[in-house]
Amino acid sequence: MAARIPVAIIGASGYTGAELLRLLFEHPAIDVVGLYARKSAGEPIRRVFPHLAQSKLVVEAFDPDAVAAKAKVAFACLPHGDSALVVRQLHDRGLTVLDLSADFRLRDPAEYARWYGHGGAGHPEPALLEQAVYGLPELHRARLAGARLVACPGCYPTSTILPLAPLLRAGLIETHGIIVDAKSGVSGAGRGLALGSHFSEIAEGIRPYKIAGTHRHTPEIEQELAGAAGEAARDFRILFTPNLVPMTRGILSCAYALPTNPDLPAHAYREALLDFYRDEPFVTVVDADQLPDTAHVRASNRAHVGAWYDARSRRVLAIGAIDNLVKGASGQAIQCMNLALGLPETTGLTAPPMFP
Amino acid sequence: MAARIPVAIIGASGYTGAELLRLLFEHPAIDVVGLYARKSAGEPIRRVFPHLAQSKLVVEAFDPDAVAAKAKVAFACLPHGDSALVVRQLHDRGLTVLDLSADFRLRDPAEYARWYGHGGAGHPEPALLEQAVYGLPELHRARLAGARLVACPGCYPTSTILPLAPLLRAGLIETHGIIVDAKSGVSGAGRGLALGSHFSEIAEGIRPYKIAGTHRHTPEIEQELAGAAGEAARDFRILFTPNLVPMTRGILSCAYALPTNPDLPAHAYREALLDFYRDEPFVTVVDADQLPDTAHVRASNRAHVGAWYDARSRRVLAIGAIDNLVKGASGQAIQCMNLALGLPETTGLTAPPMFP
Amino acid sequence: MAARIPVAIIGASGYTGAELLRLLFEHPAIDVVGLYARKSAGEPIRRVFPHLAQSKLVVEAFDPDAVAAKAKVAFACLPHGDSALVVRQLHDRGLTVLDLSADFRLRDPAEYARWYGHGGAGHPEPALLEQAVYGLPELHRARLAGARLVACPGCYPTSTILPLAPLLRAGLIETHGIIVDAKSGVSGAGRGLALGSHFSEIAEGIRPYKIAGTHRHTPEIEQELAGAAGEAARDFRILFTPNLVPMTRGILSCAYALPTNPDLPAHAYREALLDFYRDEPFVTVVDADQLPDTAHVRASNRAHVGAWYDARSRRVLAIGAIDNLVKGASGQAIQCMNLALGLPETTGLTAPPMFP
Amino acid sequence: MAARIPVAIIGASGYTGAELLRLLFEHPAIDVVGLYARKSAGEPIRRVFPHLAQSKLVVEAFDPDAVAAKAKVAFACLPHGDSALVVRQLHDRGLTVLDLSADFRLRDPAEYARWYGHGGAGHPEPALLEQAVYGLPELHRARLAGARLVACPGCYPTSTILPLAPLLRAGLIETHGIIVDAKSGVSGAGRGLALGSHFSEIAEGIRPYKIAGTHRHTPEIEQELAGAAGEAARDFRILFTPNLVPMTRGILSCAYALPTNPDLPAHAYREALLDFYRDEPFVTVVDADQLPDTAHVRASNRAHVGAWYDARSRRVLAIGAIDNLVKGASGQAIQCMNLALGLPETTGLTAPPMFP
Repeated sequence: MAARIPVAIIGASGYTGAELLRLLFEHPAIDVVGLYARKSAGEPIRRVFPHLAQSKLVVEAFDPDAVAAKAKVAFACLPHGDSALVVRQLHDRGLTVLDLSADFRLRDPAEYARWYGHGGAGHPEPALLEQAVYGLPELHRARLAGARLVACPGCYPTSTILPLAPLLRAGLIETHGIIVDAKSGVSGAGRGLALGSHFSEIAEGIRPYKIAGTHRHTPEIEQELAGAAGEAARDFRILFTPNLVPMTRGILSCAYALPTNPDLPAHAYREALLDFYRDEPFVTVVDADQLPDTAHVRASNRAHVGAWYDARSRRVLAIGAIDNLVKGASGQAIQCMNLALGLPETTGLTAPPMFP
Repeated sequence: MAARIPVAIIGASGYTGAELLRLLFEHPAIDVVGLYARKSAGEPIRRVFPHLAQSKLVVEAFDPDAVAAKAKVAFACLPHGDSALVVRQLHDRGLTVLDLSADFRLRDPAEYARWYGHGGAGHPEPALLEQAVYGLPELHRARLAGARLVACPGCYPTSTILPLAPLLRAGLIETHGIIVDAKSGVSGAGRGLALGSHFSEIAEGIRPYKIAGTHRHTPEIEQELAGAAGEAARDFRILFTPNLVPMTRGILSCAYALPTNPDLPAHAYREALLDFYRDEPFVTVVDADQLPDTAHVRASNRAHVGAWYDARSRRVLAIGAIDNLVKGASGQAIQCMNLALGLPETTGLTAPPMFP
Repeated sequence: MAARIPVAIIGASGYTGAELLRLLFEHPAIDVVGLYARKSAGEPIRRVFPHLAQSKLVVEAFDPDAVAAKAKVAFACLPHGDSALVVRQLHDRGLTVLDLSADFRLRDPAEYARWYGHGGAGHPEPALLEQAVYGLPELHRARLAGARLVACPGCYPTSTILPLAPLLRAGLIETHGIIVDAKSGVSGAGRGLALGSHFSEIAEGIRPYKIAGTHRHTPEIEQELAGAAGEAARDFRILFTPNLVPMTRGILSCAYALPTNPDLPAHAYREALLDFYRDEPFVTVVDADQLPDTAHVRASNRAHVGAWYDARSRRVLAIGAIDNLVKGASGQAIQCMNLALGLPETTGLTAPPMFP
Repeated sequence: MAARIPVAIIGASGYTGAELLRLLFEHPAIDVVGLYARKSAGEPIRRVFPHLAQSKLVVEAFDPDAVAAKAKVAFACLPHGDSALVVRQLHDRGLTVLDLSADFRLRDPAEYARWYGHGGAGHPEPALLEQAVYGLPELHRARLAGARLVACPGCYPTSTILPLAPLLRAGLIETHGIIVDAKSGVSGAGRGLALGSHFSEIAEGIRPYKIAGTHRHTPEIEQELAGAAGEAARDFRILFTPNLVPMTRGILSCAYALPTNPDLPAHAYREALLDFYRDEPFVTVVDADQLPDTAHVRASNRAHVGAWYDARSRRVLAIGAIDNLVKGASGQAIQCMNLALGLPETTGLTAPPMFP
C-alpha cells in the first residue's frame, strides 16, 4: 500500500478548517499531519472542536518551514489578505496549496484591489496570480490536474455558477440582466463573533445583507459566468442579493435570466443542464417536478441544480443548492486536491448527504 | 362608554383565526362573541390553542343565522372555495365581512376561474365580487370606509405590493420585467398536516416551491401593481418565486425592477417610499444604511420597506418585510375592520414588534 | 385623565431593556421618558433596536441627577455588580427602582458574596438589601405594595418557584431531594457576544451548562422555596441543572420531588396548584391531560404550571413554562411596578401569548 | 476481494431506513440489494428521499421469499407490533435480522404486553424472544458475535444507559431514586405526520411529553440498568421524562442518582466511566471541564458521556449525548451487524460528527 500523502491545514480553528479535518478523516490516501492556527496554538484540536474527539492532533503556531518539513499539501483557511503571504511561503517551499480565501480567485489584480483592497493597496502576490487555477472542477477540470495553487471558489459563486454556466455556454440565456437572489446559512459567516451571527438576532427571521452590488462574491461570479459565456468579464454585470437564513448550513441560489430564444420549449433549459452534468460525480439535475433544497445536500459535496422556464414572464430560472461548508468550501477543496494530485476525483467525498 | 361591537370568527381552529383572537383581546371597541370551526366544534378554544388559556369561548358549528343573531362583524378564515358561500350568507344577513380567503381578491372572475377553478367552475359568488374592496389600506383606504365586504390580501401580495406600489405610482420603475423572490415562514402553510410543514423536513434547509408562474398569489400581485401603475392588469406579468424558510413567522419580499430613468440619483427610490408612506401608521421606510428583517416586525402589524438602486446592474431593488400572520393576514384584517367601521385605524394594533 | 408616570430604563441596549420598552408602549399609565446605556449613548433607540422604529427616544449616558429630574420610576437592567450603585443613586433620589439584576435578590449578604463576590468583596450596598422586596407577586404581593426597591427574580427562579412553592407550602413534598432540570432559550444569555450564543454553535443541538451546583440562580431558588416551606434557606439544597435550547425565548423547569405522603391520590398535587393560583391573573394550571409548553406562553407575562405524580417511581413532578424575557424578566418587573405604584396589577400586561 | 454481503432494508420509507442507506453507502463489506416499504412500493428511493439521489434502488413491496432470495442480512425498520411477524419470516428463512422496533427488546413477554399490548394481546413471537440479543455493544458485545436476531435499542435507552451503566456496575450509585430527564430532537417521532411534529407548533418552544411513567422506553431502560446493577429488573424503577426540543437530531439524557458513598471524591464517577469506556471505539468520556452536547455527535455513531458529583445536594449527575438516528438507531444497528457477522466493529461507522 502506498504511503499516505501528508497534509497540513492552516487556519484550523475556523469552520472550514474543522470541516476539512472531518472530511479528510475518511480520505484513504491522505494523512493530516499538522494543524495551524494563531489563537488556539498549543491546544488539542478536540478542545477547540469537541466533535473532533477522535483526533490526537494539537494545534501549532504557523511556521512555513515547519509545515514544509512534514507536509506536501496545504489547505489555507485564512481571511483574505492574510492568506496570500502564507500561500506564497508554502508555494515557494514546494507544497501544493489549496487556498480557501478569496486572494487568488480574481484573475484581474485591479478587480482584486477594487473589491478587497484597503487604502489603495494592490494584490499582495500578483506574480502567483497567474499560476492559480480557479477550483471549480466542473468548469476547470483539465487545468486542475497537476495544479500547484488552487483558488477554491466562494460558497455563493459555487451555488450560482453551477446552474448558470451550462445555460450560458449553450447560449440559451442572455449575458445581461442576470439577477441572483441567494440564501445562505449562518456558518458562512464563520466562527468569529458578531451580532449578525448572534443566535437571538438571527433565529426566526430572514433578511438580506450587502445588497446592490456590494458583496465581494459579485465579481467572482461575473468572472466565471463571463468565461462560460465566452465574453470578457469586464462587460458582465449581475445583480447579486445575499440573504441570511436561520439555519447553519446550506446555500440556495435562485438566478433569473432572459432567454435568448423565447420560443424554445420549456424543457430545453433542463436538458442543457443534463447534457452538461451527465458525467459529473457530484452534480444532480433534479427531476423536472422536483426542486433543489439545501436540506437534500447537507453534509455532502453534492450540488442539486435545475432550470425552468416561466412562459408568463418569459424568464429562465436556474437554481442551485449546496452545503456551503462542503461543496461551497472544504469538500470542493478536497475535490480539487484529488485532481491536482492525480487521485480519483471523488476519493473521500462519496458519503451521501445527511437528511433529515 | 360605548358598547363593544360583537364580532365572530369563522374558521377559528386555524392560525389566522387564533391570531385574530389574540389581537382582538386587546381591541378596546370589540368583543369576540363567537368562534366557529367544523373540526373543533364543541371544544373550548383553550383546548384547541392552549396559548389562549385566558379565553372562555367554546368553538361552535357554523350556522349563519346563529352568527347573525349575535355578531355584527365576521372574519372568515376559511379555505378559498369554501369561503365564498359563508361570506355571502353573512353578507346577506347584514354583517360586515372580512374575508381572509382568496375568494374575493381577484376582480376579474375569469382570472379567479383560471387560478382557483376546479373542473371549469367559475367564481362561486360573482355578484358579490363587485362589492368587495381589496383590503390593503395603504392603497385603498378611501374605499374601505364603510365597506361591507373586504377581501383581505394574501401574505405574499402584502409584502410585495407595499415596497413596489409607490415606485410604480411615481413612474420610477418599468411595468415589465419585475421579478419577485419572496421568502416565507412555515406558518403561512397553516395548521393542516403536510410533509412540507413536517419539522424534520423543513428545519435546517431552504427551498423554493411553486415556481415559474404557478403560485396563486401571482395574479393578485399583478392586479394591484397594475392598478398602482395605472395599467390594465391583463398586461402586467411578474415572475414570482416563493421560498420556504425554516422559521415560523415572517415574509420577506425582494423585488427587482428596471428603472425608467437610469440616471436618477440612487436615493430617489427611497424618497418615493418616504413620500408615499410619510403618514402611514404601520409602514416604516428603513434608514438607507439598514435593511428590512422579518425579525424586526414579528408579532406586529408593521411593515419595514426600502428601495435601493444598483448602479452596476442598473436595477432597482425594493424590499418588504412583514409578519405573515399579522400584517399579512389577521392584523391587516383588523386594520380594515377599523376602517370599515369608522374606528381609528390603529385601534388594537399599536403593540410594537416582539424582538428577539 | 391622570398624567402618566414618567419612567426611565437604565441599560436600554440589552434585551430586557428593549422588552421593557416594547411592553411599556402599551401601558396606559406610563410614559417612558428616558433610556440610558453606556455603549449606545447618543443613538436613537430605533438604530439600536430596529423593531422599535415607533420610538423617538434617544439613548443617553447615565447620570443619576438627570434621571431623577425627569423620572419617578426606574428599571435597572444592568449586570450584577454594576447595578447596585445605580440602584442606590436612584433610590437616594427618591425614585421607585425595579432592579432586574441579581444584586438585591439574596437576602443574606454572605450568600451574595459567596455566589457573586469577586476577590472576597462583600455586598456593595448592604444597607439597601433590607428594603428590597423579592419581586415574585404570587408569593410576595402584600410586601410589593408601595415598595421602593424591588429585586426582580431571575428567569430560572420564576419558572421553578411557581410550580414548586404551592406544593411546599401545602406540605405535599419533602424539602430535601428536590431536583430541577431547566431548559432555556438563548436570549437569557443577553445580547453580549459569546461563542455560547453564536448561531452555528447552538442551533440543532442541546446541552447542559453550569451544572452541579454552579449556576448562580441556585441560591435564589433555594431561598424562595425555603420561604415557601417555612424553613431556613441555609438548610435547603436543590440540585439545579440548566440546559441551553436552540430557541430564542422560553424557559421550562421540570422539578422532581419526594412526596411527603405517597398514598395521596395523584390529583392532589394539581389541586394544590389550582388552590394556590385560583385568583392569580397570570398563572394557568394546565389541564390534567395537557403539559406546559414554552410556545404557549411566548411574548406574554403568563406562566403555565402543572403537577403530576408518578406512582411507579413515587415521585412528584412539578413543571413550569414562561417566557424568560417577560414573566422571567421585564413583564414581571412591570407587574411589580404596578403593585408598587398601586396600579391594577395587570395593567399593560394583558396581551395573550403569541402562537405559533 | 471478498464478495460484499447482500443486505435488505424493510421499512425503507422512514427516517431510520433512509439513515441506514446513507451509512451503508460507505460500508465496504456490504451491498444494499433491496428496499421494502408498503407506501412507496414502485418508487425509486431517490424520489422518496431526494438526498439519496446517488442510489439506483427502487422500493419494492415486501415479500419474505423475495428478500430471502437475494439478501443474507435484513434490517427491519417497522412500527412495533408490525415488526415481529416480518422478523420471524426472515429469521425462519435464515437471514440475520437487525430489528429496530421495540418488539424484541424486553426480555419479559409480560412486560411487553403491559407496555405495548393492545386489548390484552401478548407478545406476537414469544419463541423468538429468547434468541434476541439486546443490541447495545458496550454492554452485550460478546453475545452479539454470531447473533441471528438483534433487538436494537431505543434512542432514549441508548443515551441513558451509556452514562449510567458503568456507575451501577461499579456500585457507585443507588439503584433506587434514579431520575432521567431526556431531551430529543423531532426526528425521533419519524416521518409520519402529526401535530406534534408540525413545524410551527414545535419551533421556538420546548415541552415535555409522555411524563410520569408513561413513555414506553421506561421498562427498556430499567431492564438494562437492572442488568448492569445485577438486580432483577422487576424491582428497578426510574422516573423518566422525555422532552421535545426544536431541533431535528440529537438526544441528551441527564440522569440524577444517589451516591452509594457520599464521601467519594468528585472525580470517582468520571473515572468509572473512563475505566469502562477505555477501549470503546464510539464512546468518549468528555473532559471534566466540558459537557456533552448533541451538536458534537451529530451525524455520527459516537456518544459523549460524563459524570459529575454535586456536593451541595449530594447527588450524582450522569449525562449522555448521541445522534438519535445514528447511535440511537441506524448506526448502532450497523455496529451490531458488524459484530454479528464477525466484521471489524467500526466498519462503515468511522466518519466523525458533523459540526456545525
